[in-house]
Amino acid sequence: MDRHLRTPELLIDLDVVSRSYEALTSQLPGLTVHYAMKCNPHQEIIGRLHSLGCRFEIASAAELDELRRIGADPAQVLYSNPVKPVAHIAAAHAAGVWRFAFDGEEELDKIAAVAPGAAVLVRLSAHQIRSGVPSEGKFGVDADTAAALLLAARDRGLRPYGVAFHVGSQMLLAHAWRAPLRAVARVMDKLAAESVFLQMVNLGGGFPARYCAVNLPPLSDYATAIGIGLAGLPYPVETVIEPGRAVVAEAGTLRATVIGTAVRHGRRWAHLDVGAFNGLMESLETGNELRFPVTDSRCDARRDRFHLTGPTCDSQDTIMFDVELSAGLRAGDEVYLGCAGAYTTVYASRFNGFDPPAVRCVSGVTLETSGDAAYSR
Amino acid sequence: MDRHLRTPELLIDLDVVSRSYEALTSQLPGLTVHYAMKCNPHQEIIGRLHSLGCRFEIASAAELDELRRIGADPAQVLYSNPVKPVAHIAAAHAAGVWRFAFDGEEELDKIAAVAPGAAVLVRLSAHQIRSGVPSEGKFGVDADTAAALLLAARDRGLRPYGVAFHVGSQMLLAHAWRAPLRAVARVMDKLAAESVFLQMVNLGGGFPARYCAVNLPPLSDYATAIGIGLAGLPYPVETVIEPGRAVVAEAGTLRATVIGTAVRHGRRWAHLDVGAFNGLMESLETGNELRFPVTDSRCDARRDRFHLTGPTCDSQDTIMFDVELSAGLRAGDEVYLGCAGAYTTVYASRFNGFDPPAVRCVSGVTLETSGDAAYSR
Repeated sequence: MDRHLRTPELLIDLDVVSRSYEALTSQLPGLTVHYAMKCNPHQEIIGRLHSLGCRFEIASAAELDELRRIGADPAQVLYSNPVKPVAHIAAAHAAGVWRFAFDGEEELDKIAAVAPGAAVLVRLSAHQIRSGVPSEGKFGVDADTAAALLLAARDRGLRPYGVAFHVGSQMLLAHAWRAPLRAVARVMDKLAAESVFLQMVNLGGGFPARYCAVNLPPLSDYATAIGIGLAGLPYPVETVIEPGRAVVAEAGTLRATVIGTAVRHGRRWAHLDVGAFNGLMESLETGNELRFPVTDSRCDARRDRFHLTGPTCDSQDTIMFDVELSAGLRAGDEVYLGCAGAYTTVYASRFNGFDPPAVRCVSGVTLETSGDAAYSR
Repeated sequence: MDRHLRTPELLIDLDVVSRSYEALTSQLPGLTVHYAMKCNPHQEIIGRLHSLGCRFEIASAAELDELRRIGADPAQVLYSNPVKPVAHIAAAHAAGVWRFAFDGEEELDKIAAVAPGAAVLVRLSAHQIRSGVPSEGKFGVDADTAAALLLAARDRGLRPYGVAFHVGSQMLLAHAWRAPLRAVARVMDKLAAESVFLQMVNLGGGFPARYCAVNLPPLSDYATAIGIGLAGLPYPVETVIEPGRAVVAEAGTLRATVIGTAVRHGRRWAHLDVGAFNGLMESLETGNELRFPVTDSRCDARRDRFHLTGPTCDSQDTIMFDVELSAGLRAGDEVYLGCAGAYTTVYASRFNGFDPPAVRCVSGVTLETSGDAAYSR
């Protein structure tokens, strides 16, 4: 018997990627989109986005390599990781990247040494509000320090170019952008007093995707909040966003096979060939609070509730508790997790010897993911 | 400039692996050691253990492949993951594995179908006490159910062979084995009334390693607690343990390079080229409670305290808060994390494009890891 399994497999609907990108560009007018490579750097995804005119942001030189493979222009890429290996800065600079984020003097020294004359964006802290997937905290300085750092950049022959912040991933409160934009205005005012004028404000990512049990505000709410914030800036600047999840999450459906089911202490468990360690690490990161819409191949009218877990012998490998699926679910059935295009394969390891999902780009297989609907079908 | 970094690198001292294995066999006499492959299946580690007479336990058929590569006998391997892909059961059975864990009827059906006549060990739940690294919860049934399941195994032509449990990883309370062993005695009594007698009790893993800020009980405490538990069994059985962390953790030193340092809100941060996502996932799993002993290449007499974080732009990529290192620490310096041989490379992904550590087996480079000593050198 061939022990290699047909699953897990991550199906990506590239048409949904296109629609999500176009929704962002049309409903957040005036903002340039730089897709966050870290979210899902699969070649066909970034190729499709590139063909639509999308730009990119990178967190490492390895991500730049992926972009060069699809013919993206490094001059349009933002290197937004505030702390970078010096060899990565040098490689990116040599390739034509000229805009780098930073949030400290040592990083300025590194950039000045290997990317002389580069343009720099200082990272502001902006974690007053908790996001759905905690991703903020280690980076960023206050507005006064940010202004001082941009002057320090000028002193090193670098170009004080902009301010960047990140409100946190899966941010469900559109007004989260307003306080950081007030801090940006303060940075711009302080620099204007020194006759330094900025070219760019980078509003980061954080735009949410439609998981279950999520009250997703319309994009127009985000446009309104950001518009109010931008109106408070002392002069107009180029404004960019760096969405990842909002572009690709809903395009992805994770196809998994039930390895087995069991009843323990009166509760049914379903074990899949994908779990926290080989694709669904965000379950662990969020304490199983992120709810993926789920259906199964059995489609029983009779439903039952399951704890959904992964293939390893580690109990932290659990995806979601208390999920409704076919009552007759058993080994060999397939389970489909929607909204799985973002932060899945990129976090996957081979723990216990279980393979990460293969990625296959297709059309028209995306699940209905509106609210809890997928649960009740 | 070559952007490929010389680090991160996981150095494994094979002599420490030998010493740890020998400590377990000498101080826990009468218990057969089956090394837990999931912890670190590197070929040179398992090769060394095999040469010492160590046996193995697997969580998947892929782990069995690694064991066959070093010439280990599948007949001496325990397949201890209670829920397995049916194709993995079949592959293991074909290779000569004959002992399988389970904790539900559906698993029995799968085993009976593709491994007829196999010996089975039922998994008891044993998570009354919280361990240092939570790893218990999804598996296991109570004693009465366990006895009924072993009878159900017999009805399917399988061999009721034993009982297994796992007290949880990095268990610092030696008495944690006592309550599960009382439950094992109950299972054995119930089965004896049906003239079914077991051959094996599998005490699982959980034996701890010497991280910092840990009050590590001597192995003799574990021997005493287990001895008391075993003395309460109605008749003698073969007894096995499945250590992983206690065998390889202290043998590993993770060599990393400082990418940069920064001061944020009055607190110093050091960014390494290794973090939660490419090797130190247990930081995230334990809420940064697991403390690795740390030193650095600068060896300043003047010390300062740092938050130690990884290379990605994700703030969950943080290893430890408030660690003492050389005050002058800066980009290019090396940092060494001790006690890093277990559950590091096996959890590593390439998130943000940062490579997992290369593994190199050496001798004599292991850090002093007694208590907090490594901090203060």
